[in-house]
Amino acid sequence: MVEANNAKYWRAVPAPCVGYVWAYMSWGQYGRDVSSATDQIAAYASQTPAAGDGLDAWVLDIDDTCLSNLPYYQAKQFGAYDPTAFKAWASRGTCPGIPAMVRLFWTLKGGGFRVFLLSGRDEEALGASTAANLAAAGFAGYDRLILRSAAYRGQSSVVFKSAERRRLVEEGYRIRGNVGDQWSDLQGDCAGDRVFKVPNPMYFVP
Amino acid sequence: MVEANNAKYWRAVPAPCVGYVWAYMSWGQYGRDVSSATDQIAAYASQTPAAGDGLDAWVLDIDDTCLSNLPYYQAKQFGAYDPTAFKAWASRGTCPGIPAMVRLFWTLKGGGFRVFLLSGRDEEALGASTAANLAAAGFAGYDRLILRSAAYRGQSSVVFKSAERRRLVEEGYRIRGNVGDQWSDLQGDCAGDRVFKVPNPMYFVP
Repeated sequence: MVEANNAKYWRAVPAPCVGYVWAYMSWGQYGRDVSSATDQIAAYASQTPAAGDGLDAWVLDIDDTCLSNLPYYQAKQFGAYDPTAFKAWASRGTCPGIPAMVRLFWTLKGGGFRVFLLSGRDEEALGASTAANLAAAGFAGYDRLILRSAAYRGQSSVVFKSAERRRLVEEGYRIRGNVGDQWSDLQGDCAGDRVFKVPNPMYFVP
Repeated sequence: MVEANNAKYWRAVPAPCVGYVWAYMSWGQYGRDVSSATDQIAAYASQTPAAGDGLDAWVLDIDDTCLSNLPYYQAKQFGAYDPTAFKAWASRGTCPGIPAMVRLFWTLKGGGFRVFLLSGRDEEALGASTAANLAAAGFAGYDRLILRSAAYRGQSSVVFKSAERRRLVEEGYRIRGNVGDQWSDLQGDCAGDRVFKVPNPMYFVP
């Protein structure tokens, strides 16, 4: 229900589901499902090759798309969102890269696409740690790291991300694909020619 | 991947997946998942009650949303779409009603919503058998059965369904929700305030 966007606006994994979510995330099925998604993405990207003018672009979300917060959510047993604790975790810059997405990142770059990393993380508080974390996790040579500037604080993810994607389109980029773990990454304006959802049963971002 | 709309444009269930699809559809998980979807739908509908002016509406797809084609696809082992064989099956008018959706249908009607059944089935060839099948399956008292008229033959599902939903909106209806087993039921114009995807690993309609 979460993956199909039928279940929305949930604040925490319901207690009877915690064991299932833990098992799904921890015993390999999650990683296999992300790999299935990146296989689909790579196949689509190879069918719509970059034109060579440097304007064909992909947009990738960061949290639980490129970088994993699984260690953090395992430690807190998948409880509700806690902004202070999450900021402390993210500022350490130790989120593991998600292997299938690291591979996809390099496949897209190798295919001549511009890659924009677009995240609702606060630019001022987490900009430096996020950049360092991405580099350590194998994401090097992306075209732009776009985080939430002060102007978008308190705005919904759809509003912020739509505005940033529109800016890219106005600069002339063609967003060929858009990858995220939240439906709010993939809805709104200038969403991209195709969108791809990677699984995330841990939390919901409106 | 299918439920998240990552895998698109597939023509038949891949051979290694046939056993999984058969088991999913036949051993109860499919029915439980449809029930989970209708629980979400009923909860949402109760939060946005009908205004009482007779203009709050829901749109439901028919094939594998209200009526099940599972017997047909089981018999053909989930092979590729065969228009002639499907028409022969549908014209018998013996598709079972999907129990959770029959309950939802009556819940929506009881809540004062208009219910429109919108299907890409050919109106001329299948109109009479579809109406009889719906009645036999427990769907009685819907507001309109909208099938594909000759003008939309050969059009994609998104084009046809968008045009028909737009017509409802122009008549003054507010589409509060839209339920389908295909993403093409749920995308395009006037899709509704919220859309709900019910599972269907058997086939893909572009």
